[in-house]
Amino acid sequence: MPTVLPAADLESNPRVKAVFDDIRATRKSDFINNIWRYMAFDEDLLERTWDEVKSVMATPSELDPLTKELIYLAVSIINNCEYCVHSHSAAARAKGMTTAQHGEVLKIVMLAAKTNHLSNALQVPVDPEFMLKED
Amino acid sequence: MPTVLPAADLESNPRVKAVFDDIRATRKSDFINNIWRYMAFDEDLLERTWDEVKSVMATPSELDPLTKELIYLAVSIINNCEYCVHSHSAAARAKGMTTAQHGEVLKIVMLAAKTNHLSNALQVPVDPEFMLKED
Amino acid sequence: MPTVLPAADLESNPRVKAVFDDIRATRKSDFINNIWRYMAFDEDLLERTWDEVKSVMATPSELDPLTKELIYLAVSIINNCEYCVHSHSAAARAKGMTTAQHGEVLKIVMLAAKTNHLSNALQVPVDPEFMLKED
Amino acid sequence: MPTVLPAADLESNPRVKAVFDDIRATRKSDFINNIWRYMAFDEDLLERTWDEVKSVMATPSELDPLTKELIYLAVSIINNCEYCVHSHSAAARAKGMTTAQHGEVLKIVMLAAKTNHLSNALQVPVDPEFMLKED
Amino acid sequence: MPTVLPAADLESNPRVKAVFDDIRATRKSDFINNIWRYMAFDEDLLERTWDEVKSVMATPSELDPLTKELIYLAVSIINNCEYCVHSHSAAARAKGMTTAQHGEVLKIVMLAAKTNHLSNALQVPVDPEFMLKED
Amino acid sequence: MPTVLPAADLESNPRVKAVFDDIRATRKSDFINNIWRYMAFDEDLLERTWDEVKSVMATPSELDPLTKELIYLAVSIINNCEYCVHSHSAAARAKGMTTAQHGEVLKIVMLAAKTNHLSNALQVPVDPEFMLKED
Repeated sequence: MPTVLPAADLESNPRVKAVFDDIRATRKSDFINNIWRYMAFDEDLLERTWDEVKSVMATPSELDPLTKELIYLAVSIINNCEYCVHSHSAAARAKGMTTAQHGEVLKIVMLAAKTNHLSNALQVPVDPEFMLKED
Repeated sequence: MPTVLPAADLESNPRVKAVFDDIRATRKSDFINNIWRYMAFDEDLLERTWDEVKSVMATPSELDPLTKELIYLAVSIINNCEYCVHSHSAAARAKGMTTAQHGEVLKIVMLAAKTNHLSNALQVPVDPEFMLKED
Repeated sequence: MPTVLPAADLESNPRVKAVFDDIRATRKSDFINNIWRYMAFDEDLLERTWDEVKSVMATPSELDPLTKELIYLAVSIINNCEYCVHSHSAAARAKGMTTAQHGEVLKIVMLAAKTNHLSNALQVPVDPEFMLKED
Repeated sequence: MPTVLPAADLESNPRVKAVFDDIRATRKSDFINNIWRYMAFDEDLLERTWDEVKSVMATPSELDPLTKELIYLAVSIINNCEYCVHSHSAAARAKGMTTAQHGEVLKIVMLAAKTNHLSNALQVPVDPEFMLKED
Repeated sequence: MPTVLPAADLESNPRVKAVFDDIRATRKSDFINNIWRYMAFDEDLLERTWDEVKSVMATPSELDPLTKELIYLAVSIINNCEYCVHSHSAAARAKGMTTAQHGEVLKIVMLAAKTNHLSNALQVPVDPEFMLKED
Repeated sequence: MPTVLPAADLESNPRVKAVFDDIRATRKSDFINNIWRYMAFDEDLLERTWDEVKSVMATPSELDPLTKELIYLAVSIINNCEYCVHSHSAAARAKGMTTAQHGEVLKIVMLAAKTNHLSNALQVPVDPEFMLKED
């Protein structure tokens, strides 16, 4: 049960259609998943979010696509976004994540959460060795 | 200002010494960072946490060491652990993270947090296309 | 599927009835939404929560009712409370939130989450200019 | 202690200088606060973040500037960003937030967090009355 | 560096003095810790917060005082409140928490965070066996 | 809708069967709840998680079983894990949690969240009185 309703014929809006067409072209797929359909009630939100996703996730860069997807998945797990856990688990599998790698990501997320809370509980002082040095 | 005080001579405790020795041997470094020193007040906590860190992070696996470190860093940022942000930024640099990759990790974390909250705000229904199928 | 079950005839309990009657009178509506029905298993919890909601949200103050509702909605999104996202999206619409304003709230929440995580990731030092000065 | 170091002469980089100049012009102030100086190590991050802040926060819209700032502050409190709590408390004061309004924002944030956790603890079912209806 | 400044002579305000006197009488101690001094800028916030703390934490009830304090500490760790981790670690020690119990609390918090994230990552369906039954 | 699918005959895997048998023996019950069935796709994850749960939660220690369960429940509420809120509410009831105690836990969680956010919003300085002293 969503908190906004997508318009009946979303793509009759030319700004929406332009974004959806670019999503299809970029992903080489006709499938537009729900997050894009539901955010389209605000064209500016749709255009800016897609521009950012395309720039950060769909443009060749110094991190490979699977690594980027696994980081996205890890954040989505910690933020407890049900939709995003599903969409990014699926995206990671589509980019080659194996079952063993899936298990590894979960173990890193769990371990990190564990030591994050431990450090905060103990208020551990930061080691001076971690400090960056001016060149 | 921590919430527990490390004992004056931590390594006079043989269980603590054994863990610290294994940390040094595994990392090929004499440096024991503070988190280990502060959790040593509970030997069981120290032994189990190191065992898990060694197994998940310091054992060759299907994800490369830098990818694992970047996932750990991303989780630490979202959980807002000051100590961990410092220790895992340093660890990622030590494993080869470039400044450009650092910027990329931040951009993925920021984008993921953004779409996580958007999906939750809109209560977007999960697409049936994401569902796993029995073989 | 809830973790407590409301009693069959909640309002046969005079403490529950008194609170429900005051909710109806304050809101000028017969509708008692579920959160009140489910917390009624603990009369003290019910009485104190309603007293606080009435004082903070339903009493004229220096912030107008819609502004207060939008802040409530923003917090509910970040805390990822499905029930609250629904109830406070509906309450904000009832208090006049337009579709454009809904989109704006989402964009502020998303931007704030983004710069919050960036600041924490960079451990940006607080500018002395932000410090309060004694008169 | 930050996790990146700003370059000695940041504004010798023309992309950085262009953003800083636009911040100064938009805010009609010479003051560039630290978050901008520390994120400048990645010009793309700087340009995109400023573009988004300018669009969402510094452009006249259907929500007044103080309301937008209070929502930003509320999110920063929940996300526990020390830097952002300081910068947005200061920004809200600069936009006219009174001490009484500051107290009100805190009371709404605290109440919302409280009922958010209560709803999640009880797994309260969403009332069908909150559902959006097709026109 | 706080975001509000306590008045120079807080207790010249009779509403503040009345709360501080009740804190001293309830705790049988002259010490007023900082959280009360800083929230006193809004007397209503001070009065309501103390009323709730006194009712929930300082009134004999079906949970013993140490158990209540350990739950408070656990929540403060997860919410990453530096001040609260300090004040509630100290309060728990004052109520008899041993070093071994401190270690146990940390291990439960860490384990819970771990399985919380695992369940969310796997989107594990709730077992019907957990459902409450009408009598 | 989960993100992994349990194998059809989970216990034909001897590592999985060994863990399930130990869960049954430890809990003196034939019931294996879903979290164990879904994490079994990664035997190492299953073995390590059960080993930790058994050690922390099912071994006699200096905190009684109900206190430990209530701490676990409180963390699960704050982390907003739907599955865990259900499983640990049920486990707490099985260990003797009364309805009144359930209400108390909720009130402590809500109060703690409230003062956690207040402290962070005010950036309250830590009292030197909370500092640990060397013996």
